[in-house]
Amino acid sequence: MKFSINRQVLIKHLSDVQRAISSRTTIPILTGVKISADENGIVLSGSDSDISIETLIPVSEENNQIEIHTQGGIVLPARFFSEIVKKLADEKITIEVKDHFQTNITSAKASFTINGIDVNNYPNFPVIDSNEVITLPTALFKQVIQHTVIATSTQESRPILTGVNMTIKDGKLTAVATDSHRLSQRIISIAAPESQLEKTYNVIIPGKSLVELSRIVENQPTIEMMITENQVLFKAENVYFYSRLLEGYYPDTNRLIPASSSTQIVLNAYDLLQATDRASLLSHEGKNNVVKLSIDSNKVELSGNSPEVGNVEESLAYQSASGDPLVISFNPDYMKDALRTFGQQDVQVNFTSAVRPFTVVPADREDDNDNSFIQLITPVRTY
Amino acid sequence: MKFSINRQVLIKHLSDVQRAISSRTTIPILTGVKISADENGIVLSGSDSDISIETLIPVSEENNQIEIHTQGGIVLPARFFSEIVKKLADEKITIEVKDHFQTNITSAKASFTINGIDVNNYPNFPVIDSNEVITLPTALFKQVIQHTVIATSTQESRPILTGVNMTIKDGKLTAVATDSHRLSQRIISIAAPESQLEKTYNVIIPGKSLVELSRIVENQPTIEMMITENQVLFKAENVYFYSRLLEGYYPDTNRLIPASSSTQIVLNAYDLLQATDRASLLSHEGKNNVVKLSIDSNKVELSGNSPEVGNVEESLAYQSASGDPLVISFNPDYMKDALRTFGQQDVQVNFTSAVRPFTVVPADREDDNDNSFIQLITPVRTY
Repeated sequence: MKFSINRQVLIKHLSDVQRAISSRTTIPILTGVKISADENGIVLSGSDSDISIETLIPVSEENNQIEIHTQGGIVLPARFFSEIVKKLADEKITIEVKDHFQTNITSAKASFTINGIDVNNYPNFPVIDSNEVITLPTALFKQVIQHTVIATSTQESRPILTGVNMTIKDGKLTAVATDSHRLSQRIISIAAPESQLEKTYNVIIPGKSLVELSRIVENQPTIEMMITENQVLFKAENVYFYSRLLEGYYPDTNRLIPASSSTQIVLNAYDLLQATDRASLLSHEGKNNVVKLSIDSNKVELSGNSPEVGNVEESLAYQSASGDPLVISFNPDYMKDALRTFGQQDVQVNFTSAVRPFTVVPADREDDNDNSFIQLITPVRTY
Repeated sequence: MKFSINRQVLIKHLSDVQRAISSRTTIPILTGVKISADENGIVLSGSDSDISIETLIPVSEENNQIEIHTQGGIVLPARFFSEIVKKLADEKITIEVKDHFQTNITSAKASFTINGIDVNNYPNFPVIDSNEVITLPTALFKQVIQHTVIATSTQESRPILTGVNMTIKDGKLTAVATDSHRLSQRIISIAAPESQLEKTYNVIIPGKSLVELSRIVENQPTIEMMITENQVLFKAENVYFYSRLLEGYYPDTNRLIPASSSTQIVLNAYDLLQATDRASLLSHEGKNNVVKLSIDSNKVELSGNSPEVGNVEESLAYQSASGDPLVISFNPDYMKDALRTFGQQDVQVNFTSAVRPFTVVPADREDDNDNSFIQLITPVRTY
């Protein structure tokens, strides 16, 4: 294999593929990046066996400045190769595989020779039947990811909760995540050919995979999703993103969302986020990380305290407060995560009692039973 | 004590004083920041007992928006106080000490109450006789610091080598640092009243103190230095920066600098830095962190290798190479530190032999014996 390529283009694609490459893998060849050159261009592949990423740099795009002298492939140590490429000075870089998989990387007057590995030893990525393609609007789907992954569990004690449960049914995609203390749900409409509207899917995608996916896909208006028994493939322009699926049954979360509420406040999500952030300064110092919200007909107040350090009180600006007076305590970090998903929007916070979960929803939703964007938090009992 | 102040101004000065405050100190009150209000304005003080910083925020400057209602003082937990100030929303902040050193911090609708400590328990800073003031040009003195601290030792086995030796004699300031593998020297002329030209000083200032000092002083054309037996005070506008001095005798470094050389090359410091950086990619992977420079009459070549990973070779562009052919190995990290101090300048590198220290000096120095800016590196024997 011998080719030359624009250095900046190579850096960009390498950094995409490196998202899948871990230096801590127990399979040595997976610390490498696979580089192949064929008539279409240069293909880079990386995998940590949970996530695999493949990206094509097409020879047809002039900016890529690709010249392929000999087709072929090699596996090079990923971190090291990428450092070399970043530190070279010239805009053009030439890569050539010599005898015994020794690989020459040259740019301007600098010439690196590094030990590569036979490309035939690199594991094959799963073959996914592309007959059933679900087309997703990229920007909206990235929002779905951002709004739900916050509630995935980071603990491996119940692996299934580290994923986001995605259900596709009747032209709707429902994404739910919960770590059993809080829950996030987004429902969006998706376009699908008539034939596919009848088909339903129910999968659990690791939260970490979704975060990496949303970092890679950018400018394409849509991405394609293909699901098999234990793998999902996302395809965006020249990037293929494979993730394993989590096995098992996701808990039924519908019954967790309260159908009614007895206290409601409407206020700006960002203002509440800032106030919660201030109150959490004190709660973080204490043994119990909780802040207290007090609501009555003419005042909404947030407070936090730590016996060692001090306390904070803040009266909040709000649009409306209705229903029963209430004093409720919660983990401010869960609240901050939830509020961030609403940006500068106004939100409605719905409470049932001091010991029952409460929900945060957009203030402008048309219907009280609209559960298409909901953040739920379980309060902390403080007595 | 009760006063109000512009929040951004307070943040700026707090972050200066916090440079002296460590959370790991064994003296609990030193984790705090001392805040005093008197007729001149607000004074913030912090110390880790090695470095002490005091800054005055004058009431006379309108932008500070200071209103002092009651004079007095308090010590507040520094990290926590600064987080509070940063997270408050309003541009104005009011601080009031209540009973039992409880301190109220209010801004807009948020009100923090935190436990302070009696200001009378805070240690006094040293009183330094300001009769003997050495005036230093700020920008040039910061350069002296940057050019020499790189060679200070980070190991406490010989504490004296963690400092920079500063000698003031005959209107010249000589700064030298060495960790016994390399040496940095800068000599500058300083303005001093006639009376002081006769006086000589020889002190060792901890490298860490000098780095912190150079981060704090900014826009003043000059700073003042005052030296006592075991302390040095730097005074810049409204900031007082105290550092302890290191005790002991600094080694005589003059004899380490070779008086002549047998091989010389002239080349651009930045180009050599970039090439050394590339070569170090491989040397960092190996057991011995060395790169090799080969010089003969028509070629200057830098190379690095690691048996596990591979090797790199680069032929360097240079202005001139003269004297005996030479092959020499050195630690690329020392070379990179040294070259960075020259920026984009051309440098001359002077070698005596493969086992003797070599020097890097500005290519445009007028006199071969001019030692006013010199970086010295001891090579590594590779046989």
